[in-house]
Amino acid sequence: MKTLSENRCFGGIQGVYTHASDATGTDMTFGAFLPPKPSGAPVLWYLSGLTCTHENAMTKAGLQAWAAQSGTAIVFPDTSPRGAEVPDDDAYDMGQGAGFYVDATQGSWAQHFQMEHYITADLPETVFAAFDLDATRQAITGHSMGGHGALTLALKYPGRYRSVSAFAPICAPAASDWGTPQLTAYTGDPGAHDATRLLIDGAILPPCLIDTGTSDQFFDKLGTDAWAAALARTRSAATLRLQAGYDHSYFFVASFGADHMAFHQEHFT
Amino acid sequence: MKTLSENRCFGGIQGVYTHASDATGTDMTFGAFLPPKPSGAPVLWYLSGLTCTHENAMTKAGLQAWAAQSGTAIVFPDTSPRGAEVPDDDAYDMGQGAGFYVDATQGSWAQHFQMEHYITADLPETVFAAFDLDATRQAITGHSMGGHGALTLALKYPGRYRSVSAFAPICAPAASDWGTPQLTAYTGDPGAHDATRLLIDGAILPPCLIDTGTSDQFFDKLGTDAWAAALARTRSAATLRLQAGYDHSYFFVASFGADHMAFHQEHFT
Repeated sequence: MKTLSENRCFGGIQGVYTHASDATGTDMTFGAFLPPKPSGAPVLWYLSGLTCTHENAMTKAGLQAWAAQSGTAIVFPDTSPRGAEVPDDDAYDMGQGAGFYVDATQGSWAQHFQMEHYITADLPETVFAAFDLDATRQAITGHSMGGHGALTLALKYPGRYRSVSAFAPICAPAASDWGTPQLTAYTGDPGAHDATRLLIDGAILPPCLIDTGTSDQFFDKLGTDAWAAALARTRSAATLRLQAGYDHSYFFVASFGADHMAFHQEHFT
Repeated sequence: MKTLSENRCFGGIQGVYTHASDATGTDMTFGAFLPPKPSGAPVLWYLSGLTCTHENAMTKAGLQAWAAQSGTAIVFPDTSPRGAEVPDDDAYDMGQGAGFYVDATQGSWAQHFQMEHYITADLPETVFAAFDLDATRQAITGHSMGGHGALTLALKYPGRYRSVSAFAPICAPAASDWGTPQLTAYTGDPGAHDATRLLIDGAILPPCLIDTGTSDQFFDKLGTDAWAAALARTRSAATLRLQAGYDHSYFFVASFGADHMAFHQEHFT
């Protein structure tokens, strides 16, 4: 692991690091915020949305203030492998910047697009080796495509994350053009990576907080109605908040960041 | 209006009163909590569930502590007309104690079971004449059948209630045996009094908070999944919380009473 930058931030450190990932076969860059007393701190994984790198949430979501207060580390992974040798697509919602947090099995995507394995194995190994954090206290969150990542990984890896939250998550990708084309291209089976489907099929959701704006310009791509019904049908312990007037931007994410940090903090203790 | 009892309570007064209602053609009893400084206080209407009278929530929900703190009056109406001359049914979920907050049009129910008119006209007239409260700041809540009442009245009377909340509400009575038989018998048309249907058909919901327990023994009668999907589909500003391990009892209601009072308080100011 190589340090690209470290900045003092709310009494802690906001760092950016790079490491070689076996999963993706590439170097991967990630951000990590360490609170003022990092030793033994719990870890929140923040998965970003389409077109984002490790950097967007790190600079625009404003989570470090609350993470410093509650003594939580936050890791901001990239959203896909990158590089000249990595396949891409002209569309903003496919290829580099659009990994959808799954392990690709199809065509040229299969070699590098192993984002599920990266987020659940390679990156945690690197992070827990580099920093003295508490691997028994992990939580996961994300925005948009990253919300899809947070929900599906929480459902696929029971017991790993104490809580899950999401900002405007893609909840039913197998019924959305934010999900179906990409997951089909990557894996051939969108349903296997659809949070609503996984939940209805019996996967256990840890305590869950979702915020989605009623003025979200991509609302119809998110599948919030199917997800909401599935939460109720499965009696999952969850809070869904439809936030009046908020859109899909980081201004929305930042507005509810404190609530999400407090929510995860509650389950860390 | 006649005073049946008044007790000092959290610095305010918990009263029980009776008045003759034109709507029901009977005397009706209700509870009213007045906070320590009642003049100009906003009013929260609390509608109770099947089998309840004005008394259950008044003695078991523990709302007065928070109402005193926030300076809110709470009115606890009865759930139906009562008396030897009022029709009844042997079932606990039909007739006296089970008015479903609608105006009956069918058969022998039509004469007395005018609970919608009672809650929205007769009772407010009596309350605002008797107490110096702020009619421009009203909110409504309820439990179970009373949650159905709160949601449907909030949807049917736009602009009247600044906010609505409910504890384990019946959300889709037209698809439940807690609703379909009763609303059919009373009005012939359950769909016209179904919160989910009203919302999907375009009624505007004020800011809304719902709590329902995941261990609610009547969960399948509530229609929470249909309601949750409708909230999202209509992009209603709402929070739905599925509370792990809570059941349908007043212990559940009491556990989240402070949150509901704070929620309404936010919209009163």
